[in-house]
Amino acid sequence: MKIGILGGGQLARMLALAGYPLGLGFVVLEPAADACAAPLAGHIQAAYDDPDALQQLAAKVELVTYEFESVPAAAVEQLGASLPVYPPANSLAMARDRSHEKNLFRELGIETAPFFEVHDLQTLRLAVEQIGFPAVLKTRTLGYDGKGQQVLRAGDDLQVAWETIGQAPAILEGLIGFEREVSLIAVRSVSGELAFYPLAENHHENGILRLSTCLHDDPMQARAENYAQRLLENLNHVGVLAIEFFQIGSHLLANEMAPRVHNSGHWTIEGAETSQFENHLRAILGLPLGGTAAVKHVAMINLIGELPDASAILGLKNTHLHLYGKAPRIERKIGHITVRETSEQALQERLLQLKNLI
Amino acid sequence: MKIGILGGGQLARMLALAGYPLGLGFVVLEPAADACAAPLAGHIQAAYDDPDALQQLAAKVELVTYEFESVPAAAVEQLGASLPVYPPANSLAMARDRSHEKNLFRELGIETAPFFEVHDLQTLRLAVEQIGFPAVLKTRTLGYDGKGQQVLRAGDDLQVAWETIGQAPAILEGLIGFEREVSLIAVRSVSGELAFYPLAENHHENGILRLSTCLHDDPMQARAENYAQRLLENLNHVGVLAIEFFQIGSHLLANEMAPRVHNSGHWTIEGAETSQFENHLRAILGLPLGGTAAVKHVAMINLIGELPDASAILGLKNTHLHLYGKAPRIERKIGHITVRETSEQALQERLLQLKNLI
Repeated sequence: MKIGILGGGQLARMLALAGYPLGLGFVVLEPAADACAAPLAGHIQAAYDDPDALQQLAAKVELVTYEFESVPAAAVEQLGASLPVYPPANSLAMARDRSHEKNLFRELGIETAPFFEVHDLQTLRLAVEQIGFPAVLKTRTLGYDGKGQQVLRAGDDLQVAWETIGQAPAILEGLIGFEREVSLIAVRSVSGELAFYPLAENHHENGILRLSTCLHDDPMQARAENYAQRLLENLNHVGVLAIEFFQIGSHLLANEMAPRVHNSGHWTIEGAETSQFENHLRAILGLPLGGTAAVKHVAMINLIGELPDASAILGLKNTHLHLYGKAPRIERKIGHITVRETSEQALQERLLQLKNLI
Repeated sequence: MKIGILGGGQLARMLALAGYPLGLGFVVLEPAADACAAPLAGHIQAAYDDPDALQQLAAKVELVTYEFESVPAAAVEQLGASLPVYPPANSLAMARDRSHEKNLFRELGIETAPFFEVHDLQTLRLAVEQIGFPAVLKTRTLGYDGKGQQVLRAGDDLQVAWETIGQAPAILEGLIGFEREVSLIAVRSVSGELAFYPLAENHHENGILRLSTCLHDDPMQARAENYAQRLLENLNHVGVLAIEFFQIGSHLLANEMAPRVHNSGHWTIEGAETSQFENHLRAILGLPLGGTAAVKHVAMINLIGELPDASAILGLKNTHLHLYGKAPRIERKIGHITVRETSEQALQERLLQLKNLI
């Protein structure tokens, strides 16, 4: 069976690596000639909204998924007319727009930071009156890795921030002094089967995820799973859904969700009984989901901007290197490292050694 | 970096799957149009001894390895003139010929079953006089999965057996009533670093490997590693070397070796800290070798001849399916299943369930 993927980056690449052992084949639709998934998949090089390319893709595959949530709705509609596209269009529509997403959280009783929609400078001022400082202005669409966000700390910041984000439709959120950020990788299959991975605790540098550590028996696990189940079932979602939360004391605030495999779940390749990539494929194919338990104590470090000395990294036992075949470039995610150790202490020691190498 | 592989079957496919995360690319040289490694590698479709094809391969890659030991010596020689080929030619030469192989075992003080070279009916009779019945006649070259072998139980069998194996140069071996067959996956890198996986116990059906179970702290481990080290260092071997042994009481008799990744090491993909495929690549690239310890209690079952119901297999927790993308055909290895459990008992129970499904 052949699967089509919109997007040919590292997520598509890791989906393909997980899918070959299930006997699957892959075709990616991706405008970049040097798409890093292309060496291990068929590659249709075209824009995502090119109707001819979409038709060509539909003719070659039996099912379509995607690796990023800003897939054009029209592309999903065109493909959906002739074959299944998972996750479904409404999951995409929700995740694509921060306002829809936050309102859905609210409707489903999932706690969030306070937020208001912003259409212009006037609604921004009104939102600031409600929320106070500090607050963060975020474009409703197309933001990722901290892009399209501006922090407001005083009244003087409003106009600059509004211009910096391009006067695009936005939301203003209270800037939460959270204790930690955690994320949940959840999966729902075509048959409605659910699975949840252990929460991961995430640390960012310059707005880009740097470190995810798999948590064991975390007290927030049950609530996060409950929230995820509400979302998965409300959306009739199929595939992986990743949800980022801020924790403050006993509060777990949903920050955002991604209807796809997610960077904070890369630790699952070696670290869980079944990887998020394999479970995404199992879910969209209607196969039984694989176990999600952590195999050991595991963490993942992103490689950003420059390649490390592979020999030094691999010289550390229990580290696993994942290079994406992408040219190094500032702030670009070009790989990650998974560490799998038998104790929390060994894991933390190994992470310290690794940080000196990257 | 691009690696060339002679052969484009499942071993090449699993090498490629293990190599992409190291940032590698692959080109296979393989005559079959439907080579199962081809969807995830460049594919030069030509005979292994086609000088133009070999030249084309050499121009595209920086290093060559292979997935089977009957690679033509001339091909290795041609490639070796312009780039490194690992494992080295002498490992190939030894493994390709049962007589050379057995004599090497003997020279290095590695116990074997009694054996004699057979050139014709007369030398076969002389060999039988020395060894007695039962004995097994094996062609010196091109035997695999029980092919090219005839068991002799009485004087009447000699002529038929000799004709059945095509009157090819052969050896006669004592047919050992062994207690178990075990195999060792050993690795030696360009730098001379050594690593050994835990022994696996193997069970065959109709001469084809069916089940390999990873052993824990087996009393034969140290001796098997010692034997492997003698071979690796004598051959100046680089890459994985697999050695099959028969055990009778306290005797460990080397049966044969393969200078490549091996079916009895497929359990290492999920079952060991680093897979045999990744360690083979690390070895030939001169990277530090990865840990070889078993992650849990692990076994591998080969899928032979027909595809199982993937849904039923994946419905059993802790089972991992590996399909090779090959058309089902009688006696053909088309995939394998790895089972990873937290106890020996859970593993044996799971294997029983699996056997009912395949």
